[in-house]
Amino acid sequence: MAQLDSVLACLDLNLDRSVERLFELMRLKSISTDPDYAGECRKTAEWLAGDLSAIGFSARVADSAGHPMVIAHHAGPSGVAGRVPHVLFYGHYDVQPVDPIELWDTEPFSPALKTMPDGTRRIVGRGSADDKGQLMTFVEACRAYIAETGSLPCRVTIFLEGEEESGSPSLLPFLDAHREELSADVALICDTNMWDRDTPAISTGLRGLVGEEVVVRAADKDLHSGYFGGAAANPIRILSKIIGDLHDADGRVTLPGFYDGVEELPDDVRTIWDELGFDEAAFLGQVGLSVPAGERGRTVLEQVWARPTAEVNGIEGGYTGKGFKTVIAAEAFAKISFRLVFSQDPARIRESFRAFVRERLPADCSVEFHEHGGSPAIQLPFDSAVLRTAREALSDEWPKPAVMIGMGGSIPVVGEFKRRLGMGSLLVGFGLGDDRIHSPNEKYELSSYAKGQRSWARILDAIGRDGVA
Amino acid sequence: MAQLDSVLACLDLNLDRSVERLFELMRLKSISTDPDYAGECRKTAEWLAGDLSAIGFSARVADSAGHPMVIAHHAGPSGVAGRVPHVLFYGHYDVQPVDPIELWDTEPFSPALKTMPDGTRRIVGRGSADDKGQLMTFVEACRAYIAETGSLPCRVTIFLEGEEESGSPSLLPFLDAHREELSADVALICDTNMWDRDTPAISTGLRGLVGEEVVVRAADKDLHSGYFGGAAANPIRILSKIIGDLHDADGRVTLPGFYDGVEELPDDVRTIWDELGFDEAAFLGQVGLSVPAGERGRTVLEQVWARPTAEVNGIEGGYTGKGFKTVIAAEAFAKISFRLVFSQDPARIRESFRAFVRERLPADCSVEFHEHGGSPAIQLPFDSAVLRTAREALSDEWPKPAVMIGMGGSIPVVGEFKRRLGMGSLLVGFGLGDDRIHSPNEKYELSSYAKGQRSWARILDAIGRDGVA
Repeated sequence: MAQLDSVLACLDLNLDRSVERLFELMRLKSISTDPDYAGECRKTAEWLAGDLSAIGFSARVADSAGHPMVIAHHAGPSGVAGRVPHVLFYGHYDVQPVDPIELWDTEPFSPALKTMPDGTRRIVGRGSADDKGQLMTFVEACRAYIAETGSLPCRVTIFLEGEEESGSPSLLPFLDAHREELSADVALICDTNMWDRDTPAISTGLRGLVGEEVVVRAADKDLHSGYFGGAAANPIRILSKIIGDLHDADGRVTLPGFYDGVEELPDDVRTIWDELGFDEAAFLGQVGLSVPAGERGRTVLEQVWARPTAEVNGIEGGYTGKGFKTVIAAEAFAKISFRLVFSQDPARIRESFRAFVRERLPADCSVEFHEHGGSPAIQLPFDSAVLRTAREALSDEWPKPAVMIGMGGSIPVVGEFKRRLGMGSLLVGFGLGDDRIHSPNEKYELSSYAKGQRSWARILDAIGRDGVA
Repeated sequence: MAQLDSVLACLDLNLDRSVERLFELMRLKSISTDPDYAGECRKTAEWLAGDLSAIGFSARVADSAGHPMVIAHHAGPSGVAGRVPHVLFYGHYDVQPVDPIELWDTEPFSPALKTMPDGTRRIVGRGSADDKGQLMTFVEACRAYIAETGSLPCRVTIFLEGEEESGSPSLLPFLDAHREELSADVALICDTNMWDRDTPAISTGLRGLVGEEVVVRAADKDLHSGYFGGAAANPIRILSKIIGDLHDADGRVTLPGFYDGVEELPDDVRTIWDELGFDEAAFLGQVGLSVPAGERGRTVLEQVWARPTAEVNGIEGGYTGKGFKTVIAAEAFAKISFRLVFSQDPARIRESFRAFVRERLPADCSVEFHEHGGSPAIQLPFDSAVLRTAREALSDEWPKPAVMIGMGGSIPVVGEFKRRLGMGSLLVGFGLGDDRIHSPNEKYELSSYAKGQRSWARILDAIGRDGVA
């Protein structure tokens, strides 16, 4: 325990410097979805490999078909009897685009510390939470552990990808090609939220995701709506109608077969969630809303953790500049995603959506689809040894004991670790619901960053002591 | 007649130089809807006033609340007995925006002459047809007439506005403030099409227009569709649903009261239109379409000349860049226009639309409307003296006799001339249906430009001889 105490003290002592390091990382514009930023993505990978090498990992940038990966190994303690537990830490160094840029209060890639009226401090900038701040909590824990003890309490592999925000197109072949190197006893993932500011959480369920881009075309050029209006098909109108048809009056998705594989929440899970005392009004109120907009008759927690959705994430067509232009556009497009639960099949839902669009396409119109990732939902066990270990370690660090929660977002790698490497995952993250990830003014609480580092030190220490099975 | 012949010969002789002058005018980027181009609009007005002064008009740039107007006067022949007929020529020097810029084969504001495989030549660039090329046909006719005869055959006022493409916000107060100066026996307007390449046309009916921009807002920031998807209102989905509701399955507009004032086509008009021998397949085929997309059971000519429409001219919301972003946008907007016929009331239709949107707005959502112009439809007489005069003059110039047609577009000034100045209008234009006005690669046939000039010389000559009543 004296050893852990000195590691925790070291983390506290070096907090300012750890913030500086995170700022360096956040200044790199690693927007993976936009090919213009490929160079920045590589620089980010190189920065991380360099930092991990500096603290004693054997680290390298590993090329993939897309943005490069970072792999780093540390053998853990030497001279101990028996097998050393082996964990793989997964994170992603890429970030979301920054638009609408005009809504940012600060430059997205000029990170800063901001003190709030209540005295709390936060790190602001793109990637502060998702996922640069979160992944650096683990790196900083390792740095302090090695600095204080000369090693790590268990064997650690760090695996960082650069395409998580753009559907991870290179991940699967990369996992297959590096199966041996990336297999461990358990994967630790830091890309999720706490329950609230005082209550750490382990996420045990994640929704899946299907991303689709649909382009509808009609005339072979933009038309004058005076000359052709009334006679020519209008792609915006057609696309809008299709989107409007995607939900019924009760908020249910109308795609044929969409609810195949969707189950009602098991009673034990419902009990756990009920005990969380979730405040629907506060959850919606933090973003200026007051009425749940999803499926009628479902609680908000069900709507965001246990029910599937269809969302339009973007749409554009015709004249969108200042003023007005009486044009009938030749084409319009939308980016649409589906969140999946239980055993919904991403491939079948993609096909059902495409058929749904094609059936609604009038004469003279054509459609083009672009796939943007797909992964099923994930349910992790509620009672594994590593989960119990982590729960205790987290409860030691934070004001309130750790809880187990669901999650509305998607972390497809969790399913692939299981499927391809036979490896379970532990999802522990220190984000908060108001971190505005993917949005302007993304932030990460300084307390998340500081106590997140301490939490990982505790978890690594406990795993080194207790193992993972 | 010898006098007219020499004017026509002068026009033929100076065609190249008249093209050069039009090119000068087209190089000025007078995009009225975008405030960034206000300076270019003023330069364009100054260029025109300068050119009209140079040929003998008393011309000036007249300030308005928005982009400036150009007013020019020529007293016509001196020393003739009795009252000289007085015409007002109206045109507009502003142009549409150029996006999508990537679809242009040439720079929009670098006009050029292009020879086609069939040997015809065309002027390409923004404004070549709408309306710089068209208005210059009249200016060139005046130039040649004055050069050959020392004067014009009738009194001519030229009135050019710079806000036609952006709803003419300053026109009405300007007309009221300059009622005396702008009143004439008849207005001549050159902003319409021929029936086909060989057949000149006088437009006797125009649809009205209501332009609306609607902005739907929900959460007070962009949201992560994983965390909030299923619980948060999505403005794109809401806006799409509203747009989808605007038409029924038969293509009719569903706004309450929308068809109030819409009449069936009178038999005599139907007869005239039937005799035109309109080729629906060719009309749609020129833009890559084959099936009329408007109200079921209506001919294409009815759909574009005699039936009202609701069109979405632009839409945008959420992430529209490369790749994918799982965001629920805080807002989405659409630009929507209605084409009006017969006695549909623009104000009532605007109100009906706004009520329609508000009724469909779910909880937590707000809406904002921006007005972009409104004008009723116009029906001009089929048998006025000036119309007969122009019809004969046009028939003398072109291979086939002039026909009277409807028009799907809107020229609101026609109604205002009648209402405010008690002045009728004669709509003669030399555009063709494939001129791609408002679209990339706008063009104006060189034959339109050359024979358009000759047509105006003939019409002015005939009005000088026969008067307008």
